[in-house]
Amino acid sequence: MRIVQKYGGTSVGSIEKIKNIADHIIKMKNEHNEIVVVVSAMGKMTDELIRKAKQITNNPNRRELDMLLSTGEQQTIALLTIALNHKGQPAISLTGSQAGIVTTGTHTKSKIKNINKERIEAHLKEGKIVIVAGFQGINENGDITTLGRGGSDTSAVALAAALNATCEIYTDVDGIYSVDPREYKEAKKLEEISYEEMMEMSNLGAGVMEVRAVELGKKYNIPIYVGKSLCQNNGTYIVEREQVMEQKLITGLSINENALMVNLLNLENEPKKIAYIFSVLGANDVNVDMISQSMSNGNKIDISFTCPLTEEDLLDKAIVLIKEHHPNIQISKKSDIIKVSVVGVGMISHSGVAAKIFDIFAENNISFYQITTSEISISFTIDKENKSKAVENIAKAFNL
Amino acid sequence: MRIVQKYGGTSVGSIEKIKNIADHIIKMKNEHNEIVVVVSAMGKMTDELIRKAKQITNNPNRRELDMLLSTGEQQTIALLTIALNHKGQPAISLTGSQAGIVTTGTHTKSKIKNINKERIEAHLKEGKIVIVAGFQGINENGDITTLGRGGSDTSAVALAAALNATCEIYTDVDGIYSVDPREYKEAKKLEEISYEEMMEMSNLGAGVMEVRAVELGKKYNIPIYVGKSLCQNNGTYIVEREQVMEQKLITGLSINENALMVNLLNLENEPKKIAYIFSVLGANDVNVDMISQSMSNGNKIDISFTCPLTEEDLLDKAIVLIKEHHPNIQISKKSDIIKVSVVGVGMISHSGVAAKIFDIFAENNISFYQITTSEISISFTIDKENKSKAVENIAKAFNL
Repeated sequence: MRIVQKYGGTSVGSIEKIKNIADHIIKMKNEHNEIVVVVSAMGKMTDELIRKAKQITNNPNRRELDMLLSTGEQQTIALLTIALNHKGQPAISLTGSQAGIVTTGTHTKSKIKNINKERIEAHLKEGKIVIVAGFQGINENGDITTLGRGGSDTSAVALAAALNATCEIYTDVDGIYSVDPREYKEAKKLEEISYEEMMEMSNLGAGVMEVRAVELGKKYNIPIYVGKSLCQNNGTYIVEREQVMEQKLITGLSINENALMVNLLNLENEPKKIAYIFSVLGANDVNVDMISQSMSNGNKIDISFTCPLTEEDLLDKAIVLIKEHHPNIQISKKSDIIKVSVVGVGMISHSGVAAKIFDIFAENNISFYQITTSEISISFTIDKENKSKAVENIAKAFNL
Repeated sequence: MRIVQKYGGTSVGSIEKIKNIADHIIKMKNEHNEIVVVVSAMGKMTDELIRKAKQITNNPNRRELDMLLSTGEQQTIALLTIALNHKGQPAISLTGSQAGIVTTGTHTKSKIKNINKERIEAHLKEGKIVIVAGFQGINENGDITTLGRGGSDTSAVALAAALNATCEIYTDVDGIYSVDPREYKEAKKLEEISYEEMMEMSNLGAGVMEVRAVELGKKYNIPIYVGKSLCQNNGTYIVEREQVMEQKLITGLSINENALMVNLLNLENEPKKIAYIFSVLGANDVNVDMISQSMSNGNKIDISFTCPLTEEDLLDKAIVLIKEHHPNIQISKKSDIIKVSVVGVGMISHSGVAAKIFDIFAENNISFYQITTSEISISFTIDKENKSKAVENIAKAFNL
């Protein structure tokens, strides 16, 4: 069998851990597998490198930031390969460039365009374990690029697709849970989840897997295993919707605390004016989410939207620009809110999920500010103080 | 003017220092120069990376060690370029590979084969300062290589040769001294020194410049300036012998404390046996230096040689092998010695240097064990305890 395994920063966070991972990989290799390993930078190294760049400027040149950050993964591949070789296991490390990972798009958030797999195939044929630096690639100018945070997951799934391999993501959690176990202790671990549900969960802040990686898995139909490294307990398989054995109405609940609600009050209902507002937000890199609109009095409307709390500085810049053009707009911000979402492919065929949640909120005296729905998810913004009450009651009601 | 500047690890040892270096480089650029900068890893980073690899094994795979160590310089080029860009100066960082530095030979001690300078030339034409990672290149397999300790000097001189530029090496000393100022406080800084003398000084342990870099400078006739970074004092120019204005009899004195003397006593004078001994030493990577031979009694001879004290373990292995074949050989080691050398192109035309040194040793009651001479140098092994007496008296006698 051909397997692409990915180990995250915590799994390779020390020399001792790297040695243990090496033993685990050799065991897998000895079971007659062809192994390609994708690794992240050790522990908090990426953060430390960013901190160094920020000591120079808050806005470092992005090409140079990629040059800097890519050294983290490069160190891990070298150290892991040294450990494998020392244990008598033939292995070779490859940077993203050497592994043929060609990217496109802007620095610090490039996308994989294609993978020239010849060199990896040649090393696998030699019987070597191939250790690839995650998170990085090379663009058409021959410059080192990175794929953005969580990009190593994407590297692993893309390699699995190119090499026709299965994909195993080893992380510091032992699988995907219906609810973050830190928020709800009785949360159940899922044996399986569909790509679509996982993508919604990723988007909605579950934080276990990078959404682009899941998207890529869906596109090429690569089953992705997510589990804890060196742990015998079974993790979770991310598979096609049709392959999920036990179809549940609701698969998971995710909580996003990085949310800021913005209210625009008493707007005239002029599409041009509204389009202008959102184009200014976009031009200032504010990621707008959960837009809701309601009639106010007369011909006036109210619009609310959420954006990441971490983008408040970008938002404030945009607001200044908007007010220059439309000085009469009333804009207010509310930051003591969270976004709660329930996700499940079962919703497609079963109605009544929204109604059930309204019931739960009413019974428990939880008011919500916005509600948005997609084919397989429903999201609400509620007050932060109601978090555990909402999470526990929804989880119990849907047996999460 | 086109200048290649090299900054060593101490000069770029902190973010603060990198910012200061950036200011200095911009000043040079604003004087209508084209600038290529070669940098080392920050401070002790290379040592730290080696320490990490050694936590796994004392004998790490050399290809992987290159993969690991090359990240040090890569971080410096990114951070320095971020600093330059932040100050409004167009600049771009290039790894050894991107800079077209093609190497040959074994990993961890590769040699530069050629430099494909097209990319650097293109960036210079754009008005950018080009920041190149020293110490590294790429071999014909597309693998990252390193040039061995001090390799950044070699990178800088090779780039200067390829780009038809002058070369400035910035280090933590303010020039080349006739004697190490830590050993002799009144040592004089040299305005100029010839390539040949500098090569002898490097070989003999002066430690300021990598000998391969000086050799390359001589080969392509690249004047090399050695000075302290951000220091207004003049440093030293390394130039062709004919260009040295003030020809001195003796230019410098170097001290090598990394010396171990080995004595082979009462050997039969059989060339085959002697050749065998030195071939075993060579096969065990013992760098033999200063071989001297003298008649003992009858047909017997005594042979002494020195080797680096740091290679004592390799020497001991070789001695075991030699004794297996020739159990009667008497071998003794003496480690409380140092090697003192005087260097000067003036010696070629002036005789009497050796005689003068014999006089100094006699007057000061310093006994020596070996003496070897080259066209421009004379070396002695003496007892370590006589170091300062020998250094001071020789320095005074030759006005160093």
